[in-house]
Amino acid sequence: MATQPELTIQGWGPSSPAEAPRDGDLSRTLPKAARRYLSGELGWTPRATPPVAVGEIRLAPSRLSEEANARLVDLLGADNVRTDRESRLRRAGGKSYLDLVRRREGDASDAPDAVVLPGTTEETAALLAACSELGVVVVPFGGGTSVVGGLAGVDPDDRPSIAVDLSRMSSVQAIDVPSSLVTVGPGMRGPALEQALARDGLTFGHLPQSWEFATLGGYAATRSAGQNSTGVGRFDELVAGVTMVTPSGVLELGHPPASAAGPDLLGLALGSEGTLGIITGLTLRVRPTPAASSYEGWSFRSWATGLAALQQLSRHELLPDIVRLSDTDETRANLLMASGAGARALRGSLRARGHGDACMLVLGWEGLPPIVQARRKAAASVLRDGGALRLGRKVGEAWKKNRFSGPYLRDKLMDGGLLVETLETAATWSALPTVYDAVRRALRESLTRKGRRPLMMSHLSHAYPTGGSLYVTVLADRDDELPIQQWLTAKRAATDALLAAGGTLTHHHAVGADHRPWMEREIGPLGVEVLRAVKERLDPHGICNPGVLLPE
Amino acid sequence: MATQPELTIQGWGPSSPAEAPRDGDLSRTLPKAARRYLSGELGWTPRATPPVAVGEIRLAPSRLSEEANARLVDLLGADNVRTDRESRLRRAGGKSYLDLVRRREGDASDAPDAVVLPGTTEETAALLAACSELGVVVVPFGGGTSVVGGLAGVDPDDRPSIAVDLSRMSSVQAIDVPSSLVTVGPGMRGPALEQALARDGLTFGHLPQSWEFATLGGYAATRSAGQNSTGVGRFDELVAGVTMVTPSGVLELGHPPASAAGPDLLGLALGSEGTLGIITGLTLRVRPTPAASSYEGWSFRSWATGLAALQQLSRHELLPDIVRLSDTDETRANLLMASGAGARALRGSLRARGHGDACMLVLGWEGLPPIVQARRKAAASVLRDGGALRLGRKVGEAWKKNRFSGPYLRDKLMDGGLLVETLETAATWSALPTVYDAVRRALRESLTRKGRRPLMMSHLSHAYPTGGSLYVTVLADRDDELPIQQWLTAKRAATDALLAAGGTLTHHHAVGADHRPWMEREIGPLGVEVLRAVKERLDPHGICNPGVLLPE
Repeated sequence: MATQPELTIQGWGPSSPAEAPRDGDLSRTLPKAARRYLSGELGWTPRATPPVAVGEIRLAPSRLSEEANARLVDLLGADNVRTDRESRLRRAGGKSYLDLVRRREGDASDAPDAVVLPGTTEETAALLAACSELGVVVVPFGGGTSVVGGLAGVDPDDRPSIAVDLSRMSSVQAIDVPSSLVTVGPGMRGPALEQALARDGLTFGHLPQSWEFATLGGYAATRSAGQNSTGVGRFDELVAGVTMVTPSGVLELGHPPASAAGPDLLGLALGSEGTLGIITGLTLRVRPTPAASSYEGWSFRSWATGLAALQQLSRHELLPDIVRLSDTDETRANLLMASGAGARALRGSLRARGHGDACMLVLGWEGLPPIVQARRKAAASVLRDGGALRLGRKVGEAWKKNRFSGPYLRDKLMDGGLLVETLETAATWSALPTVYDAVRRALRESLTRKGRRPLMMSHLSHAYPTGGSLYVTVLADRDDELPIQQWLTAKRAATDALLAAGGTLTHHHAVGADHRPWMEREIGPLGVEVLRAVKERLDPHGICNPGVLLPE
Repeated sequence: MATQPELTIQGWGPSSPAEAPRDGDLSRTLPKAARRYLSGELGWTPRATPPVAVGEIRLAPSRLSEEANARLVDLLGADNVRTDRESRLRRAGGKSYLDLVRRREGDASDAPDAVVLPGTTEETAALLAACSELGVVVVPFGGGTSVVGGLAGVDPDDRPSIAVDLSRMSSVQAIDVPSSLVTVGPGMRGPALEQALARDGLTFGHLPQSWEFATLGGYAATRSAGQNSTGVGRFDELVAGVTMVTPSGVLELGHPPASAAGPDLLGLALGSEGTLGIITGLTLRVRPTPAASSYEGWSFRSWATGLAALQQLSRHELLPDIVRLSDTDETRANLLMASGAGARALRGSLRARGHGDACMLVLGWEGLPPIVQARRKAAASVLRDGGALRLGRKVGEAWKKNRFSGPYLRDKLMDGGLLVETLETAATWSALPTVYDAVRRALRESLTRKGRRPLMMSHLSHAYPTGGSLYVTVLADRDDELPIQQWLTAKRAATDALLAAGGTLTHHHAVGADHRPWMEREIGPLGVEVLRAVKERLDPHGICNPGVLLPE
């Protein structure tokens, strides 16, 4: 079990010992052209709005009773039951914009009353049984990267809550090379897994933007999707089995390679977001490290022609492993953010070829060289027929290099007085254009006031034969008086709009606390009843992450 | 809604008006060499054991009360509530060996008390609400092709039961060509769907052996897998949404292309085998009709080398769309069954090349020509490295031509005094050889007595990156005194053995009545509790197909 770096308390990136205060100076982060562009687009005046010092974050005393504490220490040992300020602050909430606003303002009211670290499935089972008896709420904690309030820990009965940190269960338990399966602990992260697999010439390949910090158990609990999911598969498709500990006992789910023995109970554990129990083990499908890997950029004159071309690739099963089509706004912003002569030359060349309002497409192929070559060639022909212009490998490689950089940049933009948040959905190819328009309109209407306008940068992040997912990054001048209200209002409008247009509530961020008001609309009242029935059987005292997923 | 041919009452194939009695003469069915081979292997003396005449099948009077009958007629109309002998006999049980033995002996004690035919989701909802109130058990009836007792209709409280025939809901409701989605009624069959899709240049491609008669709703309820599933996908992977009517209301499940909004409730409906409600609509993923399609045969010297080569193809994602590796026993029997000079020449040629105990492999590729070509070439190189001998297209085409013929032949073999049944499982590549040995040993021990031995012909029918499914056809001299006991004993031994060796209870036949005693072993006692909790919420009076899936 290697020690894995912890996330900083008020933002993204590895925690530094001192948590040095930031000054909010954007000049080192954004090229001048980008700052000027954003100011113009948003009606935003860059201003230093740094977070309060970590030492000033307000934290209420732990509500865990002495009796409960003693019981937990008895089960797990004193080292693995922590109520110190640092431990609790580090497991307070996730990394959504709202989480960061709160933490930057010095609010840690969502911090757990204690942090416990079980080391095995058996310890976790004993822990949940004890907490069920004691009336202590449990919130599983993996990487702490939720962006939908998945760690909110809000309990309607206001019982004390503990974060169940899974970092002690973070090693590879078994590799079955012939069957391409690996069994791991839930606290393991992507980089450590890749390192372990590389020894056998294998890779897992699930690469969401949170890859450096998120855990495998967290991916399973939230039905994550990674940047390579078009080829490798969504996370839920890569799970061959899980061990899930519930207050009523342990479930061993999944039977690789496939089974028809009744409904898919593994699919109930995936996406359960800690509401049914805690995943303490996962068996995952791996693959040989690809011999060939090729990334490249293309350009379309418009979003509509880009979508149409991807839809053609999809239906003919020519989708690359990575597909990312940016709309005009995102393409323009990306080109402005990229400083240097190369980016300037590319902007000029696109203008000269009538692609001044380009929508850029990044594609990535991985696998055996002759297959990659055949797929690329066939796809290129479809793309050219669809009006695409090939931009070459540099664009693809540049994207690949920066694939994890978004959340780091967000901190800097927030330091400069900006609202920065993302949202995502998915829809069929037929519904996608309507969903795109509806989300943008709703955000624009909600965030436009007093000469200020939002900038919405969107991309199609995953393509399927039947549709695609839409990922929207929103920038706006922050309302420094009511920043939380500002985003909640915009988010509500966007969510109502995307559901009405036929989008799904979430394609890969999960439900958490933030989306739960819409769950009944997504799965119907009877669907909610089904989930409740399962929860009542597995978690009769409702101690498992009560603040998320199921509507109140 | 086209009229679809009904299955004959005592066997397989379209019903003929007279249900002409059969004489049990095998000389027209099996080549002489095959008959001689089977007699020698099995210790079997061919003998005429034809079924009783249909008119002699015993059928108890309907137990449906007048009150209930009147209520159903009120809801659905007199034409759609049937208690006549013919209607009830045609919906009695499925098509397992045990079903056929019973029907051939004149036993129809599992026939429903009535047959009803709702025409819409709304009518089905009203029907289930009424039956829940009246205490009438409902068994959904699609094609009637279950081979695991899925239509047993056994109720612990011995309430009257009705077959809910879905043939009135058998049309295409919508085709969304850009999104590659089609919405259909549950009573539609594969051939009718393919015909409807062909007009738009589309295909569905799910081709199990029961394709001519099974329905789309049935595939969904049982998590079917087709012969092309390696490429096209298992049926459950092709379902984008279902409408499921339960006694507590209607569920609309699934949100294409993908969602992370909580656990996968669609996956609970798939494989629920009528125990939670009745599927009244399905949205399915379709694809363009493949431009290229290529089938071919290969040969290995042994089962082990064949498995090893397929495992190599799997891990490098070079699996063709169709993969079928027969063991030595199945290969020998297939070659003997195939009369004619071509088969004789092939046998001679295999012997001459040291493949006298060959394991034959059928592969099929479908898709765009350059991609098919690249995949074939890369796969051929892996196969040759694994010791395979290419036999060419004739072998592949011959398999394709006979792909639906198995169940027809079974009737003839039963007419001649044979036990003929199949069973299937799946396991990881690591566990598969052990599972294969264990199943064969258990069947051999159970079915060997007094100079008689079984013949087990096995093939790997579906390959996945993580493992494959094993399909075993068993032939033995029938115990004419206790034929049902003979098979139940063998089946119990085989199932215990395959589970102990790491196989799944069923890969694509489903659970039904026959596998339910092992469900707790497959998903654990808490897994069973989860299913029960869902059932109790959706079907509080337990009227939905109580005889299957959930253990007693």
